[in-house]
Amino acid sequence: MSTIDKLKWRYATKKFDSTKSLPDEKLEVLKQAFNLTATSFGLQTLNLIIVSDTTVREHLVEHSYNQRQVLEASHLLVICIQDNISDDDVDKHFDNVKDIRDTPDSILEPFRNDLKKMMKVKSVAERQEWSIRQAYIALGNLMTVCAMEHIDACPMEGFNPEAYNDVLGLKEKNLKSVLLLPVGYRAQDDKFADFKKVRKQLEEAIIEM
Amino acid sequence: MSTIDKLKWRYATKKFDSTKSLPDEKLEVLKQAFNLTATSFGLQTLNLIIVSDTTVREHLVEHSYNQRQVLEASHLLVICIQDNISDDDVDKHFDNVKDIRDTPDSILEPFRNDLKKMMKVKSVAERQEWSIRQAYIALGNLMTVCAMEHIDACPMEGFNPEAYNDVLGLKEKNLKSVLLLPVGYRAQDDKFADFKKVRKQLEEAIIEM
Repeated sequence: MSTIDKLKWRYATKKFDSTKSLPDEKLEVLKQAFNLTATSFGLQTLNLIIVSDTTVREHLVEHSYNQRQVLEASHLLVICIQDNISDDDVDKHFDNVKDIRDTPDSILEPFRNDLKKMMKVKSVAERQEWSIRQAYIALGNLMTVCAMEHIDACPMEGFNPEAYNDVLGLKEKNLKSVLLLPVGYRAQDDKFADFKKVRKQLEEAIIEM
Repeated sequence: MSTIDKLKWRYATKKFDSTKSLPDEKLEVLKQAFNLTATSFGLQTLNLIIVSDTTVREHLVEHSYNQRQVLEASHLLVICIQDNISDDDVDKHFDNVKDIRDTPDSILEPFRNDLKKMMKVKSVAERQEWSIRQAYIALGNLMTVCAMEHIDACPMEGFNPEAYNDVLGLKEKNLKSVLLLPVGYRAQDDKFADFKKVRKQLEEAIIEM
């Protein structure tokens, strides 16, 4: 199957087969893929929460406009942002660069200081919006990886983030939930699986210069 | 090569081999992949501009903090948002759903009206931010597709969008540039290709519940 055929196979799965679980090796691919997501300045101000506990997920259904995918999928992925970005986060990142690449401080210092300055001129809300955009990169990456790996998924913006933060205890972790991606295998009777894809014509979506 | 090996092969290419062009079939994959990007409500308020013209790209270098990837890559992809979202856009989308899926109006009307209402309560700036988040999904999708197809790419937020809008005549098209992705093939002497990837430990980035 070509990359494009795999992307065409993908659809926002409305009904999952709740009897089928993702094997550990597929979960491992999703974890690694999330962590390999490119982020602005490499700062990775994101976390991925993988919820398998069905009691917790049962409780989340009502905070998801009663969309049962969050319960019936094999696992529920919750993409979160840090609620703030501090000098400490920047330092940890550059210390990591130094450890992994053995880059001298003389090269890293100007970048480290510039990034701290860049963050300081932003309000907390602006830093969060900055992180949210990165969360959408992770979503795009994960959806495509799911398609490549023949994993079904349903991207969801429609849920109550505050209720999710409460149920998952995210406040204590200084995290905020931003996006959901239930993952698993489509139910054989999900009628949405057979719907034709609706997209603009290529010539309407793309301009060549 | 596994999906993860391909994602590890990917890096933000700083120096492209300007003598190598992407073949038409690879460009076709990128076009189709962009158009297959999942967007909120399927509304696709995005456009992709593919710039091959080197005179135009030469001019864009100075508006890209002198990063020469925009010129030296095989092609420069510019992900744009519509500068606004109107009832017309919503109507066009639902007419498209009706055409492609033959869905009766009685089913589509409530969704059509809800989406128009949802857009109306947003300011123009909020509609743009809504579209910008979708642009980041497209970026995540395209970067991963590039990795799968062995195409090198460099995601870029750092450029002057207003200058890009002027040079590319986007105002007349009611578009705004949001993200860049030069694509092509890495130069053999791009030292960044050999740098170790810097990422958090999985246990730091991922929480299982």
